[in-house]
Amino acid sequence: MMILRSSPPSPFGRKVKLAAAVLGLSDQIRVEQADTLDPADSLRRQNPLGKIPILVLEDGSALYDSRVILEYLDSLSDALVLFPETANRFRLLARAALADGVCEAALLIVYEGRFRPEDKRSDNWLDLQAGKIERGLKALEADLPALGDGLAVDGICLACLLGYLDFRFDGVWRQSYPRLVDWLIAFEAQVPAFDATRPSAR
Amino acid sequence: MMILRSSPPSPFGRKVKLAAAVLGLSDQIRVEQADTLDPADSLRRQNPLGKIPILVLEDGSALYDSRVILEYLDSLSDALVLFPETANRFRLLARAALADGVCEAALLIVYEGRFRPEDKRSDNWLDLQAGKIERGLKALEADLPALGDGLAVDGICLACLLGYLDFRFDGVWRQSYPRLVDWLIAFEAQVPAFDATRPSAR
Repeated sequence: MMILRSSPPSPFGRKVKLAAAVLGLSDQIRVEQADTLDPADSLRRQNPLGKIPILVLEDGSALYDSRVILEYLDSLSDALVLFPETANRFRLLARAALADGVCEAALLIVYEGRFRPEDKRSDNWLDLQAGKIERGLKALEADLPALGDGLAVDGICLACLLGYLDFRFDGVWRQSYPRLVDWLIAFEAQVPAFDATRPSAR
Repeated sequence: MMILRSSPPSPFGRKVKLAAAVLGLSDQIRVEQADTLDPADSLRRQNPLGKIPILVLEDGSALYDSRVILEYLDSLSDALVLFPETANRFRLLARAALADGVCEAALLIVYEGRFRPEDKRSDNWLDLQAGKIERGLKALEADLPALGDGLAVDGICLACLLGYLDFRFDGVWRQSYPRLVDWLIAFEAQVPAFDATRPSAR
């Protein structure tokens, strides 16, 4: 049995859960909650960066980050599903990196409140991150990942990004990006695990 | 001719330059400087995240981030060199993710000075990043990437990380990690492009 170290709110942990579900591997993975705020949590020995998700394999070795874990899970199936070796492979990978990068900007906004006293928060820094989110969503709205048989890593990343924006930023994005709203409705219909992995507070 | 958008100090841009050199592709790539601080720079149209490096292909499409670009360059060679399809592939990828993650923590320390007025800087945030760097370097010291014929993406990432710590943090790491010092000497001897791509201020 593989062990996934993650936490209920983590968007990158959710990527692993969705990928496992899409690949039919969920019953080979046990989720074990991790607390990134607790210095004594064993996750810092599993990943010196102290970040989740981490996938602990049966031999005890630990894989991270989410991108590496997704590719590993994909390698366990007969054919590469999430990282297809097709002509558009690198376009999918760049789109996945874009969705992940927007998600990292959203996390930095959340961290600004979590790790800093109020008088150390910077509007300049928050504006920089907000700009990445706005430009990124605009680009994704114009260049949606495939669904159906074409569902790949970029779709998983986008769904987790949008779910995180719903969770932490009250779904404000929905007012500006109608094609992303429709895309997420279709994704939810195709991947029931999306509903089953909705983020929640620790 | 492919175009690499990067800047002289960028550790992630340097990864692309070193990978191109190792793969014998340097003469197929023209480097075009990018200024991430200039909102009018075309890089924000090429990558909505406003981050470098970006590889612009001959058809005008843009690939990012550095991990995707390295894998793309590797796919242009006959056999996969930097991302070998061997039994230890995912161990290499996790080690590369660790080196990149330490480098991101170092960048966040630099950004703390670049993007915030002095009274908005937070010791708590800086300590968090310093902890990632210290734990990461300790783990890498105990688990070095291969050199020689086994040189792969993890070695490129580690060399660029250590070069960045030399550039921005006065090489203080050298006092604590003698095996990493020896490893970097051997890397420099194997990859002459390391010396040719030393970071410099813009």
